[in-house]
This record gives sequence, C-alpha cells and structure tokens, in this order.
Amino acid sequence: MKSKKIAIVGASGYSGEVLVQLLLSHPHAELAAVTSRQNAGQTLAQVFPKFASHPKSGAIRFTEPKVEVLAKQADVVFLALPHGVAAEFAAPLLNVGCVVIDLSADFRLKSGERYKEFYGHEHPAPDLLGKSVYGLPEVYREQIRKALLVASPGCYPTSILLPTIPLLQDGLIKSSGIIADSLSGVSGAGRKAETEYLFCECNESARPYGVPKHRHLSEIEEQLSVAAKTAVTIQFTPHLIPVNRGILTTLYLELAEPVSGEGISACYEKHYGHEPFVRLLEGKQLPDTKNVAGTNVIEIAWRLDPRTGRLIVMSAEDNLVKGASGQAVQSMNLICGFPETAGLV
Amino acid sequence: MKSKKIAIVGASGYSGEVLVQLLLSHPHAELAAVTSRQNAGQTLAQVFPKFASHPKSGAIRFTEPKVEVLAKQADVVFLALPHGVAAEFAAPLLNVGCVVIDLSADFRLKSGERYKEFYGHEHPAPDLLGKSVYGLPEVYREQIRKALLVASPGCYPTSILLPTIPLLQDGLIKSSGIIADSLSGVSGAGRKAETEYLFCECNESARPYGVPKHRHLSEIEEQLSVAAKTAVTIQFTPHLIPVNRGILTTLYLELAEPVSGEGISACYEKHYGHEPFVRLLEGKQLPDTKNVAGTNVIEIAWRLDPRTGRLIVMSAEDNLVKGASGQAVQSMNLICGFPETAGLV
Amino acid sequence: MKSKKIAIVGASGYSGEVLVQLLLSHPHAELAAVTSRQNAGQTLAQVFPKFASHPKSGAIRFTEPKVEVLAKQADVVFLALPHGVAAEFAAPLLNVGCVVIDLSADFRLKSGERYKEFYGHEHPAPDLLGKSVYGLPEVYREQIRKALLVASPGCYPTSILLPTIPLLQDGLIKSSGIIADSLSGVSGAGRKAETEYLFCECNESARPYGVPKHRHLSEIEEQLSVAAKTAVTIQFTPHLIPVNRGILTTLYLELAEPVSGEGISACYEKHYGHEPFVRLLEGKQLPDTKNVAGTNVIEIAWRLDPRTGRLIVMSAEDNLVKGASGQAVQSMNLICGFPETAGLV
Amino acid sequence: MKSKKIAIVGASGYSGEVLVQLLLSHPHAELAAVTSRQNAGQTLAQVFPKFASHPKSGAIRFTEPKVEVLAKQADVVFLALPHGVAAEFAAPLLNVGCVVIDLSADFRLKSGERYKEFYGHEHPAPDLLGKSVYGLPEVYREQIRKALLVASPGCYPTSILLPTIPLLQDGLIKSSGIIADSLSGVSGAGRKAETEYLFCECNESARPYGVPKHRHLSEIEEQLSVAAKTAVTIQFTPHLIPVNRGILTTLYLELAEPVSGEGISACYEKHYGHEPFVRLLEGKQLPDTKNVAGTNVIEIAWRLDPRTGRLIVMSAEDNLVKGASGQAVQSMNLICGFPETAGLV
Repeated sequence: MKSKKIAIVGASGYSGEVLVQLLLSHPHAELAAVTSRQNAGQTLAQVFPKFASHPKSGAIRFTEPKVEVLAKQADVVFLALPHGVAAEFAAPLLNVGCVVIDLSADFRLKSGERYKEFYGHEHPAPDLLGKSVYGLPEVYREQIRKALLVASPGCYPTSILLPTIPLLQDGLIKSSGIIADSLSGVSGAGRKAETEYLFCECNESARPYGVPKHRHLSEIEEQLSVAAKTAVTIQFTPHLIPVNRGILTTLYLELAEPVSGEGISACYEKHYGHEPFVRLLEGKQLPDTKNVAGTNVIEIAWRLDPRTGRLIVMSAEDNLVKGASGQAVQSMNLICGFPETAGLV
Repeated sequence: MKSKKIAIVGASGYSGEVLVQLLLSHPHAELAAVTSRQNAGQTLAQVFPKFASHPKSGAIRFTEPKVEVLAKQADVVFLALPHGVAAEFAAPLLNVGCVVIDLSADFRLKSGERYKEFYGHEHPAPDLLGKSVYGLPEVYREQIRKALLVASPGCYPTSILLPTIPLLQDGLIKSSGIIADSLSGVSGAGRKAETEYLFCECNESARPYGVPKHRHLSEIEEQLSVAAKTAVTIQFTPHLIPVNRGILTTLYLELAEPVSGEGISACYEKHYGHEPFVRLLEGKQLPDTKNVAGTNVIEIAWRLDPRTGRLIVMSAEDNLVKGASGQAVQSMNLICGFPETAGLV
Repeated sequence: MKSKKIAIVGASGYSGEVLVQLLLSHPHAELAAVTSRQNAGQTLAQVFPKFASHPKSGAIRFTEPKVEVLAKQADVVFLALPHGVAAEFAAPLLNVGCVVIDLSADFRLKSGERYKEFYGHEHPAPDLLGKSVYGLPEVYREQIRKALLVASPGCYPTSILLPTIPLLQDGLIKSSGIIADSLSGVSGAGRKAETEYLFCECNESARPYGVPKHRHLSEIEEQLSVAAKTAVTIQFTPHLIPVNRGILTTLYLELAEPVSGEGISACYEKHYGHEPFVRLLEGKQLPDTKNVAGTNVIEIAWRLDPRTGRLIVMSAEDNLVKGASGQAVQSMNLICGFPETAGLV
Repeated sequence: MKSKKIAIVGASGYSGEVLVQLLLSHPHAELAAVTSRQNAGQTLAQVFPKFASHPKSGAIRFTEPKVEVLAKQADVVFLALPHGVAAEFAAPLLNVGCVVIDLSADFRLKSGERYKEFYGHEHPAPDLLGKSVYGLPEVYREQIRKALLVASPGCYPTSILLPTIPLLQDGLIKSSGIIADSLSGVSGAGRKAETEYLFCECNESARPYGVPKHRHLSEIEEQLSVAAKTAVTIQFTPHLIPVNRGILTTLYLELAEPVSGEGISACYEKHYGHEPFVRLLEGKQLPDTKNVAGTNVIEIAWRLDPRTGRLIVMSAEDNLVKGASGQAVQSMNLICGFPETAGLV
C-alpha cells in the first residue's frame, strides 16, 4: 500500500496530541510535519514527553505553519485549529493540492448565515462551504472517499448523530421533541489556561454550561434535518464532569408510532451491524465512557420505556478519538484508500 | 432551648456518618447513641478517625440496635438502614414514644402496593404508611413539626421535587412530558464492598444505570402527583459520575402556556425566596455540585429556550446532606422546636 | 466576649476563600472587609456562589486594598497575597495599629539574606523580619498571643515541623539526615490559570516538582534549627497528586540512640497530648488526607522499623486549613483572646 | 515469524485484563485460551465490554483452569493468580512442556524461607525456586530468552530496581541507607471488592500503608543485593493515591563517593541508552505517571543535591504495564524470539 505524507497544523492542543499519537503508530501514514506557533523549534519529544520513546519523536520538529512549505511536505493536512483560524488555511492548502481534514467547526455547516448566527462572525471562506464533506464515515462514507475537504464532526455531534440518524432515516422516531443530554470530560474544553478548567475547579464538580444554545447545535440540527428530511430543532444540554476523556449522551426520543424492541434492534443492526467502530450493546449492558476511552468506538444502547412510551438511547465515546482525532483519521483512511480501521482501535 | 437526646440506628454507612458529623456539632441536639451490628463495641473515634478530635467521639460506643435500650437513651431516633430493615424498627420505636426519622424508602410511599411494585417485597409495616410525613420541609413544614414518623426523602427525589413542585403547583408547566436527567456522586451507592463501585471502576467513567425504571421514581411521581393534583408519570435517568458528593439534575419541562422569564422568577421567588436552604441562582450562574458540597443547600437555576419553547431547570445538591442526612436534621429541628437551620450550613 | 473586626487583603485565591468561609461562621470575629483588585466592586456572593446563602455575603463587597480604609474597618488584617506583595502592606498596616497575620512567606524567615537566596529578590521590609512571630501555635503559642505581626507557616512546613520538632527538642532523633517526602493536593498551587494545573494535566498524574531546592526549605530548616539548637539541612521532595485538598508527608528520621516505641509515644504525648488540633493516631491507624480535609487537624502516626533502625513519621493535614487559613485563624484566636478552637473544627 | 499460542490463567483481574488487551493486538502471539473460575462460560466480550469490538472477543470463552487442556492449547501460559495459587499451576504446566510466565510473587525469591517470612506460609513448590528467572529484561535479558519459568517482577520492585541497579552495579551509590518512597494508583490493589478500595474511600485521599514491612521488600532487597554483591536492606514506604494507573517512586540514595552529574548520566546512558522501554529524562523534565500510562515505558530522572550530597532518583511507570503485564509480554517476546518490542508501546 502506498504510504502518504501527513501534516498537522496546530498540533499542540489535545486533539492535535491525539492526532500525533495516532499518526506516529499508523501503519500506512507517515507523519511528516507538525506546526505550532507556540512550540515552533521544539521536537515532538520535547513538547510531548509521552511520545519521546517513539523513534521519530526526536526528529520531527514543530514549525511555524506555512502553506507553501506544507504543500511540499504533505499529501494530507489536518487542521487542529480554533474555528475561524482553520478556514484561513483551508483554501490555500486546497489550492496547492493538499487534501484537508479540518477538525474545527469551520466547514461543518452548509450555510454561512447559520455559521455567523452560532459563531458570531462572518465565515472566512464561504465559497468552500459547499465543497466540504461532513466527516461522519458511518453516514457519508462514499462522499468522504472522494473528498478534498473534510469537516470532521464535533465531539458532541458525533455522540448524538450516530445514535439518532438511523432512527430518523427509518422513520422510527419523530423529528420533533428530541432531547440530548450530554456529559463531557474536561479535555473537551481544550488545553486552555483558564481558571474554570483548573483541576480544583473541575474535580468534585458537575455542572451544566452553554444552556440553552451551545454552538454545536448548529451542526447537529443540520445533520438531523438531512436525516429526517425536514427541519429539526433539538434540546441540547452539555455538562462538564471530572473525567479526562469521554462523552456520555442520553437521548430522549418520541416514537413515530408504537414499535417493538425488535424493530429498534433491527434498525440499528441494519445500519451499524457491520460498522467496525459502532458497538451495539446487548442484554443489560449500558454505555460507559471507560469502555471506549482511547478507542475509536462509540457504544450505543437503548431502552423502550413502557411507562412513558419514550425511547431512551445512550451513547459513549472518547471525545478526543471518535469525537475528534480518531474519526478524522478514519476519514483519512477512506480518502487514502487505506483499510478504514488502519491505525485505530 | 431544651436539648434533645438523639440516637442513630445504622450509623456506619455514608448517610450515618454524615448524621454523626452533623449531630456531634449540633448546638441543641445531643448524640446519645449509635448502633451498628458490624461495629458494635467500638467507639466513634475508632470507626471514624475523622471524628476522633471531637471530645465525645471516644465516649460514644456503637451498640447492637435494641429498641428497649434506645427508648431510654433517645427522644429522636434516626434510622439509616436499608429499606425493609428500617420498617422493622419503626413500629416498636414509635410504640415506646420515640420520634422516628427514617432515611430509608420504607415510609415514603402512601401505598403498600406501589412499594411492592418498586421494592419487590411486601411492605413490612403497611399500617404505618398513612402516618408518616414526607420530610421535605420546603413543602411539608407544618406537618413535619407535628410528625412522629418522618420519611426523609431520597437524594434524587429531593433534587427533582424541589425545582419542579412550585411550577406544578402554580400551573406553569404541564404535568406530562417531564424528563429528569440526574448525575450522582458515588457515595449515593452507599458504603458497599461491590466491584462496580471500586475506585478504578468509577474513576474516568460516566455511565447511566437503572434505566428506565429506577426505584426512586415511585416517590418522585407520588409527590409530583400531589403537587399537580393529577397522576404524573415522568422519565428519569440516573447516571454515575466520579465525584464523591453531589447530584446535578437537569429537568426538561413543557410550559402549560407561554410565560415570561419574570413569571418563572416570580414563582420561585414566591415559594423559595425566604427558604434558607434553597439558593435561586441569578444572572449567568448555573448550578455546580462543588458549590453545595458539605452544605444543606440546593441550588436552582432555569432557562427558557425560545428555540424549543421548553423550560430547562437545573439543580445541584449534596446527596448526603440536602439529599439525605442534612435534610433529616432539618426535619429534626422542626420537630424539636429548634431553629430550622441549627447545626446546618 | 468582645468581637473583633477582621479584613482580608487578597481574598480571591484558595486561601482567601477558606479564610472567608472560616470568618463568616466564626462566633466572635466579624468579617468587615475583603479586598481584591480583580474582583473589586463585586459582593462575596457574586465571587463565591458557595457562600451566597450566608446572610452577609450579599452585603460584603470586594474593594481595592487601601491601607487607610482598612485601618478604619479592621482590628486584624489577614494578608493572603503573593510573597513580595504582602510585605508592602504589612508595614503601613502595623503603623496604623492593625494586627497583621500574613499567610505569605514574607515574614517567616529571620534573615533577609536567606529570603533573597530562596525568593530571588531583596526583602521589601527587612526591618520587620525581627518583629514577626512564626505562627505555629503548638510551638509559639505564648509569643503569638502578644504578636502584632504573625507569619503564618506554609503548608509543607506545617506538615513537616509539627511531627519533627518534638523529636528534635527532646533529642530523640539526629538533626542530620532528615528526609521529608510530601504529596500535595493541587489547591496548593493556588488559583492560577496555568496550563500545568489544568484538570487534564493533573488528573491521572503523579509527579515530583521543585527538586531538590523548594522555597519552603528555607523556613523548614530555620525552624528545625531552632528546635535542634544547631543548623539543620534536610532533604525535601514535594509531589503533586490529583486531590483538591491535603498534604501527606512521610518523614525518614535517624534515631539519636536506640529508643523504645514507648519513648516515642511519650514524647508526642507530652508535646501534643492536649493539643486540640494534633491527632496522634493509635494502633494500626495511619494518616489519611480524607480524614482531615476541611478541618484544622493534623494527623500524626509513626513506626519504628527494626530492620533499618529508622523512625518513620507520617502526617496528614488540609493544606488550606491547618496548612494555611485555619492555622492563621488559630493565631487570630490567640491574639484576640478568643478560645483557641473558636470557629475551627 | 512463527506465531505462538498463548493462554492466560486467571484473566479476570486488572493484570489479566491488560494481558488480554496486549495479546489480542500482538502481531505474533495468538491468544488461545483464558481461564477464570468466576467467569467460566462467558466470552471475553461479555466479561470485558471494552474488548467487544475485537473480532476474536466473541469467540474466546473463559474456561475453568485445567492443566491438561491448557497443555494442548498453549505454548506459553501466563499465570495472573494470587500468590500461593500460582505455584500450584506452575509445576504441572512445566511438566507438560508449557513455558510459564508467572505474574505472582511465587517464584521471585530464591529462598523458601524468605518467602515464608514475607508471605506467611510455606512455599508450595520450593524445588522450582532455583529454576525461575526474574523477569526484568533490562537486567536478565539473556537468561529470560532461555527460561522455562519466568517470575515477572512486582510493580513496586520494577519502579525501584530499574533506577537503582545500574548505580549499585557501577558502585556509584552506597548499598546502605537506600530509601524508596512510592505512590501507587488504586489498580495496584487488584479488582477486589473491599471497602477500602471503594471510589469514595480512595478519591480525595492520600495515605501510606504496609509500613514498615511491605511484602515486595523481599524481592527488592534480593535483587538489590545481587546488584550490590552484598546484603542490602532498604526503607520502603508505599502510598495509595487516587489515580487508576501508575507508580511514582522517589529514591533517596547516598553517593559512594563524590561524583559529577556527568558520571551519573554516563552510568544510566551506558545501561539504558539503548533500552526501548527506559526513558531517561533530560533537562528540566521530571517523571509523570500520565506520560507513561498505557505504555511499557519507565521514565527515570535524577538530581544531585549539593546541599545534602544525596542523589535523588525518580521513576514513573504504569503499574499494570511495565509493572506487570507489559513486562511479562516483554519476557514472552524474548522467549519466543519475537522482536522485544512487539505488541508493546
């Protein structure tokens, strides 16, 4: 299999770090360049002591991000940058022929207007919005294979969309009244030196935030609307809990019409029975973030509540892997023609 | 103020431990006896090193629980026992003239049948069900003052009932469609040597459990039905998160008819504006378990979501204090004629 | 008992917060003023939601720290400021007649030279060094009663000095070869928005730091030298562990000459048998930070190792209470003529 | 490379679980059988949901441990059993031609007497004590290659021996006066349903235990004595801290004679410069358990303290990987002729 050269722009945050980890041990991809304004000049081993035992970690040095240089170094470029900044790199990188996989929110929406509503500023490259593919392989696998620009989904959206889309597509649930209640580990906030994310502010704490209009709602609703073939508005409450990694989402769904448990099972089995990274739990098992930490797997379980008639669906994922960098590598594998599971567990 | 003598039956679990702590430092109550089968013969100081600096901790010794002895030692007896066992002690203690404050589920329901449905066995003392008062002081203050048998509420029920009852009583929300999503610290599971509550099984883990029919639903729905003056069925999903103390509950509520934010505020202000242990958050503040840990306070905040029309209410409490032992002491204060806040912060 | 008015300068860090908590509930002291540059204008309730249920929290407002104003408001002023800054406030406050209890390192050393060696800058008020009393009540109780300027000890020093000083004073251990190995909760680093103290950097982490010459060595060695009546140099290794509160110190000591366990017990009993905040553990008990969290107690246990001939002494304290603010309040109680344990548990 | 068939006896504890994880993804070893009395009949996927996405997890079923069956299934058998029990399996398995890698303490000592002193019972198979090889590849690599019975080292011993042995072998430090102070994550206690390891008993807690004569002292001292060519007695204090994975050890060592920093560096470089799993930290870096979690790497750093003349050496490892199962797989790789790093990161 022909190996590909890969660059990561903005490799000093938590997603960037996991990208480095996955790409260093990837059987077909070769990590060729990492950039970071703050760490420019240092080696991977110096910035991330945990990777120092990898033979390449002393040889790869962070540089300032420069498009012309990246163009020569890499076939595929991951952008692990804040939203707004990512868009500035995408266009020039595409112009020089790189495939771009963006982990920010910049290319996840189809409408610049909606972007502005949720992100508070004009989209920096609105003409690219129509060209990006939403990087959820279980839904857009074929489009991703051919994509030049992948908008890798957010961590909350992944945990909500994967359990919900099959039910909407098959008409098992109503498109209205959807409620998503999510718990996120602190790495979801990024490696930002802010008081509210200090150990003592998060440990022994559980708290909601961003209520009632979190930014991720925009891409969640856009994708649910596609699946439902009608405009979907949902309720979404994120909470911060004291774990490093993981998102646990509980979904409250209304059935379109009465359905048996077998019906739900059959739906999930049809959509995900052969998906390598979707684990449909059986029997009494319920999702647990510790069972997916460090992996690209999302666990899904569901319960029909005969008392309320509602369908409760629960999912667990690692926010930095299936919710970010692992899923982005999954897209890379598709684009590069590697086995979809290469370098992922 | 005349001091009262207090006994705790079953003082070796987490609730029992917090009861000991609160009563050792209570200005008017005198901790006179503690019982525990497993610790009989040992002093408080030996069983709980953290209390060893209290002058009385070396003098108070755990005994086997015997009604006739307790009758002579105590005016008020707290039962911190498993459900089913508590009921066996209540009747004889009442017969010998003790006031009984029960922290188990045994006297929280009015119907033995519903008890059997949720707890799986016949109620051991069904004739007492009609005599107990549900120990939620913000709702049943006057009844508690005169009670001989208080059924102190569960931790989840407290976190759900206090934010919801005023809205139901004032007709601001529908009695149908209520969803309660709760996160609990691990102390809620009690001091039980079970594999699933080991440090390594809970740390770096977030998981739902008891879906969809948790036992606490029975008392939650019974109390909500009283407030709504109609039968209420709710959706309730408890989750276990890696904190010692605290419950964070997020409630999804449907408005009865459009209401302004001022209307919601006015309702809460009317019901709780003078409550010493209900903290209505203002401005941008949202509940956080770390702000109530170790206190008898419940924090409540709410948001109207113009996108969905729903009312989101969030609460935070310490599951062992306002959710258990602190609230039980609050009832004791009412019964004994002490200031309601005595010995509580 | 005549109440005293108290001010806290720099009340927005973790020590300041615990001072606020202790003083709000103190039976004899009246919290009259709190200052903080960053929070000036806000109430206690706004800055610390956890105190919002206290009746005074809405009335006390943070101000800019101004000596002339503080002089009118307070009899006793606590300084909870960074070292270097504290010294600038002490002299003017003393001049206007306030008693000053300083929680920084500024007045803990007797020599300006040693201060410069360890803190890297000239001492801002060297003439005051001779006037301060080291605020370790178990050692300097009588001097503290009469002090105008108290240098409240650091958290590590308290955990090392209290177990070691009696043994040195009684000549049971050698003054050479002392090793102190300490584990600290993250609150010891203060409420500073620095990457290394983020939740994800501290959780699931244990690490040494400041090896081999931590600043606190200066005051530890100065006080041990006083006790030993000879210059003492020790080995000290601090570690950061993922707990909010607590220091656990393990001391490796060489016996001056063979001694029985009874001899060690007798020494500690003589020095600390009546100390309200020193808990000498018995039997098989060993210190545990969870047993002292939130209290002003230090736990001490020891073991003679017949295999090595060494004496191992272990202590546990809450770094923010006995290691900082609680101990400072203990000094305040002594100075003000309050019961030494007033407002402390 | 010829693949080998592997069995794990006692695969339901934490070490067993990590063995399963490592062997499922090993490029040359084939996990052929797992045994567990309590889980017999269940599949790997049922017992460990986290492995359920591995294609073999549904096919491998736990069985009762039977030697004759294991003999047919496996070339190499890992014993992840309690001490005392492991020895009972070793002899019959060796007799039927299996290579045995034992993770218990049963074959780590050369003397049955010393075993009895530390483990409290007669050794069940004393004749095998002379035949086992201590499975520390960095020290006994060549012997391991030829071993039929490997005694894989304990977690604490690994963290102490690897940093200390080179210094003793090269005569840089005295063999007397060695002090090892260690912090361990809770997984070190195993998956045992005991109250003291419950989440709420370990979270927000730091505590010493097993002072002053922990069982691991026996193998630590035996191996240090070999390195020093004289009997070595050390001081060792283990502590429990609230992390899942990791041991952080701080060693206090006396120099044999004055040595420069270059001398220490040269010693470590000579012994470990080419070791794939020993990471010698440079510059200001100090060990941190989070940088080795999930890997087979041990981090080592050291500081000469000019004030005391002592050498401080610090190490960090994952207690379940380099401290147990990873190291055991490293031995398996040597025995089977696989690359030493195969299947390990």
